[in-house]
Amino acid sequence: MSDMPTKVDIQEEGPREGFQIEPGPISTERKIELIDALSETGLQKIQVASFVNPKRVPGWADADDVIRGFKAKEGVVYHALWLNEKGIERAMQHSDRLTHMGSISTTASETFMKHNTNRGFEINREVQRGQIKLYKKYDIPVRRASIMTAFGCNFEGEIAPQLVVDRLKEILDIADEEGTPIEILSIADTMGWAAPNGIKQVVGKVRETWPDKRICLHLHDTRGMGVANVYAGLEMGVDLFDSSVAGLGGCPFAALKGAAGNVCTEDIVFLCNEHGIETGIDLDALIEVARLAEDIVGHPLPGSIMHAGSLSQYKVPQAAE
Amino acid sequence: MSDMPTKVDIQEEGPREGFQIEPGPISTERKIELIDALSETGLQKIQVASFVNPKRVPGWADADDVIRGFKAKEGVVYHALWLNEKGIERAMQHSDRLTHMGSISTTASETFMKHNTNRGFEINREVQRGQIKLYKKYDIPVRRASIMTAFGCNFEGEIAPQLVVDRLKEILDIADEEGTPIEILSIADTMGWAAPNGIKQVVGKVRETWPDKRICLHLHDTRGMGVANVYAGLEMGVDLFDSSVAGLGGCPFAALKGAAGNVCTEDIVFLCNEHGIETGIDLDALIEVARLAEDIVGHPLPGSIMHAGSLSQYKVPQAAE
Repeated sequence: MSDMPTKVDIQEEGPREGFQIEPGPISTERKIELIDALSETGLQKIQVASFVNPKRVPGWADADDVIRGFKAKEGVVYHALWLNEKGIERAMQHSDRLTHMGSISTTASETFMKHNTNRGFEINREVQRGQIKLYKKYDIPVRRASIMTAFGCNFEGEIAPQLVVDRLKEILDIADEEGTPIEILSIADTMGWAAPNGIKQVVGKVRETWPDKRICLHLHDTRGMGVANVYAGLEMGVDLFDSSVAGLGGCPFAALKGAAGNVCTEDIVFLCNEHGIETGIDLDALIEVARLAEDIVGHPLPGSIMHAGSLSQYKVPQAAE
Repeated sequence: MSDMPTKVDIQEEGPREGFQIEPGPISTERKIELIDALSETGLQKIQVASFVNPKRVPGWADADDVIRGFKAKEGVVYHALWLNEKGIERAMQHSDRLTHMGSISTTASETFMKHNTNRGFEINREVQRGQIKLYKKYDIPVRRASIMTAFGCNFEGEIAPQLVVDRLKEILDIADEEGTPIEILSIADTMGWAAPNGIKQVVGKVRETWPDKRICLHLHDTRGMGVANVYAGLEMGVDLFDSSVAGLGGCPFAALKGAAGNVCTEDIVFLCNEHGIETGIDLDALIEVARLAEDIVGHPLPGSIMHAGSLSQYKVPQAAE
């Protein structure tokens, strides 16, 4: 039987993901324009920038200016990404506008971890312990643990759901030891491997192991399964998703080939609406923002509903003639 | 509980759909090249052309030459579309290469029917009776009844599942009266309205009413729900789908805006593969044909897996070093 939630929270990552990967250049003003437009759609949480090395990610060299420039709307949580203490220190300069959220992370595939961060599981455990101590130093709460390559890995192939549980358990134990118990388990399809049955198996296993923790799905639409995977998540009762407006960060064709965009926010809002699941988001307003995003990046983006339009105009009851 | 089939039949409509809608011109040779390539993928049924008025559909003015030119592969069923007796007569000229299949049809929305064919339900019943008599004259079996706008209509809005059953019943009764009982019920999301719950409701209602008939889903990916809708169909035990290689007939961006392509064949083959459902189709071979289709039409097509690649290279067991 279905275990559909009645309400879902969607965490917008479009600005951070998109401006990181777009060849650009995109002006600070236009980045701010997108964030301000997103703030008016009913989204409750927006990742607005990335405090990373500007030499490696030139698209976010202006992170400080973007953060200073957007119009913070009451009730919306704005946050940023960082990868190290330098990034945290930059983020701390904006504590008046940003909500800081710490998280610890691991991967299901050790080979991927070695390629990505040049460390294995054993070292990673100590790195995560250090990470928690660092967050404590800055008084940043740590509520989220995430696991990458949870549904498959280009290096290691298929990933057994039990492995996801085992790897998560390692870092959850560390968080418990450090007195920062984790509330949210974020499961990421980093390489775009997941299909609906994989979503159900992994979510089922994780939920069975930690029935009291909230599960978040971070899904990519690399192989066209994005919406179907969100649907499978909904069927499993998942009520928290990361996504990107217009599918920012991905690209439907060769210009950015291999860019595996997050699932598209407005497409999954449509999915939720059609199933009577509340998101708090105004779909038609969000579609307009998706079109704005396309204008800002200057090329077509992968979203579907932004091109076809919602159904709201057709569902309005006809006035009597 | 899930009612997933173990085997699914996929009916390829890419050539017919695609070359009808593409602004072209596309040479007869390249159309034949696509059909010949499709024949080598394991597809068992391919709709290869449309015998329609060349003045209205110039893309199929060369239907006769295409049919004469492709290399018929043993075991593959090739068929064509027609809209009237003139079209049937043209198709009959190719009975050595084509399998002729009659069908009757209706719509859930009478307003759509009036816009589309300038007739209402009452007249349509007589038209369908005439259609059956026509098929009898040409000795063409009539096994399929289809219903358009089954999940919603831009003119009439939401469609109640019971309406789908009621409308289908009208034409099934006629088929019974004429001694040509229908075996396949084809349910079409003509306007791209369906979401997974709608698929489940309509399929559930139709299956409950006619448990012995086979259900076919004809789905469009207009609003990004295509793969999720196929998945919902699979969960309901549906084992017959229409689709188009590369999503031919649709377009992910403005050049052909509003073109609501069928769901993409190779994306749903991937979906089936990942769920252990047999299709008889070689996914990697089909991906190559999807890329050929993109080359033939000269612009990006909506398929996902054709751009990202399958997972087969990663799943091959590593040889011992």
